[in-house]
Amino acid sequence: MKILLVYAHPEPRSLNAALRDVAIKELEDQGHEVRVSDLYAEAWQSQVNRADFPLLAPDARLVVVAASKEAFEADALTPDVSAEIEKLRWADALILQFPIWWYAMPAILKGWVDRVFAYGFAYGVGEHSDKWWGDRFGQGTLVGKRAMLIVTTGGWEEHYGARGINGPIDDLLFPINHGILYYPGYDVLPPFVAYRVDGLDAGGFEPTAERLRERMRTLATTPPIPYRQQNGGDYLIPSLHLRPELGDPGATGFGLHVAGGRNQEAGGAAKSNMSVD
Amino acid sequence: MKILLVYAHPEPRSLNAALRDVAIKELEDQGHEVRVSDLYAEAWQSQVNRADFPLLAPDARLVVVAASKEAFEADALTPDVSAEIEKLRWADALILQFPIWWYAMPAILKGWVDRVFAYGFAYGVGEHSDKWWGDRFGQGTLVGKRAMLIVTTGGWEEHYGARGINGPIDDLLFPINHGILYYPGYDVLPPFVAYRVDGLDAGGFEPTAERLRERMRTLATTPPIPYRQQNGGDYLIPSLHLRPELGDPGATGFGLHVAGGRNQEAGGAAKSNMSVD
Repeated sequence: MKILLVYAHPEPRSLNAALRDVAIKELEDQGHEVRVSDLYAEAWQSQVNRADFPLLAPDARLVVVAASKEAFEADALTPDVSAEIEKLRWADALILQFPIWWYAMPAILKGWVDRVFAYGFAYGVGEHSDKWWGDRFGQGTLVGKRAMLIVTTGGWEEHYGARGINGPIDDLLFPINHGILYYPGYDVLPPFVAYRVDGLDAGGFEPTAERLRERMRTLATTPPIPYRQQNGGDYLIPSLHLRPELGDPGATGFGLHVAGGRNQEAGGAAKSNMSVD
Repeated sequence: MKILLVYAHPEPRSLNAALRDVAIKELEDQGHEVRVSDLYAEAWQSQVNRADFPLLAPDARLVVVAASKEAFEADALTPDVSAEIEKLRWADALILQFPIWWYAMPAILKGWVDRVFAYGFAYGVGEHSDKWWGDRFGQGTLVGKRAMLIVTTGGWEEHYGARGINGPIDDLLFPINHGILYYPGYDVLPPFVAYRVDGLDAGGFEPTAERLRERMRTLATTPPIPYRQQNGGDYLIPSLHLRPELGDPGATGFGLHVAGGRNQEAGGAAKSNMSVD
């Protein structure tokens, strides 16, 4: 496979950098081709700016959605953004690697999403009708490709458990896995998470590295999180509510959007991608 | 009250800018003092960089937590970050205003959090013991102050409902409301959300503006979301699991951390901040 790893950490000698190198080596040992977007090393521009849209007249009001659409259709995005889009088209699998800061991705990576996921490419794709609400959530430009997160956190695994104070890790990552990756069509694999990394000494590193190698060896075969396709019949249109007969009765929240329930989403525990509803 | 409004939109003639001005005028009409951090106008640096930590030796490895701690304790943060910390200390209430992009805040605002919420200020505060896990989640530097989000989204309100495909808006905002604002001690008010803003014409603006004015008039009196205090007895230490007898039996997810259940969190419906457990 061809794999793009988008990496966001400011320190070349960090644990994240070491894990990145472990992942790349294992992928290449398996015969895959790997490209890396190292956002800090490349001085990636984080924020959406007016200058992202060269076609916009100097006195025109910037409406980001409209400007993105215009620039994408005219092939007039800035070269840094266009290069990332080409990499995404090239890759069979996308890996986003980052430390979780304040329960989300670092700003530089959020800016990569905000700028690269252009209208007409990652959203605003497909028709809208009373049976179809755009090609998204399981359909779209990147369908047939795989995506996965590699993340680190200073906190304890227990604190990210089902009853942990931070909230469950799968819920914290849902806006990324479902809202950013599944949205334009990726099959999203369970994340690789390394906890308590501030205390990960040399003795703790190797088991973590080996766990990551195993995930890299199975990148092509690990069943994805069985999110429900938007246009596959599970959702009413246009409300986009999950049909009342699906999901646990009375349940709400992110877990509803995983066919067969949230236990299908846990890292390593996802043994099937079939819906049992 | 003294109020800090941190604002993140690139276009001065946007709907967000119009709503910001509505909020400021109403707050000032009520006798409040308002300061604004307009991140785009001030060319705020989005990403955490090595240059954020002037004390760090050129050949030293950047460990963000340690560097942040050292810089904060030595009063050696960069002037832009120090200025924001002073504003946060000054303000009785903090408002974060932004368009929801890809189910989260824009990169420039995430970078404001990543850089301004320094170790020793917003985290790493208080003692750790077998009965106390730091001053956080309801305790900390900013305790006694209020915070609130003003957000806009292109999507429909139904799509952010309890069974909507995007996930419930309160769950999508939980990592911000609970993980970023409640964490250092803020009392967090239900968010102000304007949906379908791309189609909000002049006729739709005034009702939205009036709804926002009402929220600004009640900023000092609206009951906060009744998140559970970490060290108040609801959580086991050190697992930080919610005690088994609390919350709905079998329930998981973010709603567990709201005393009395998730219905207490819905915007405008939060009539009480008392726990009914």
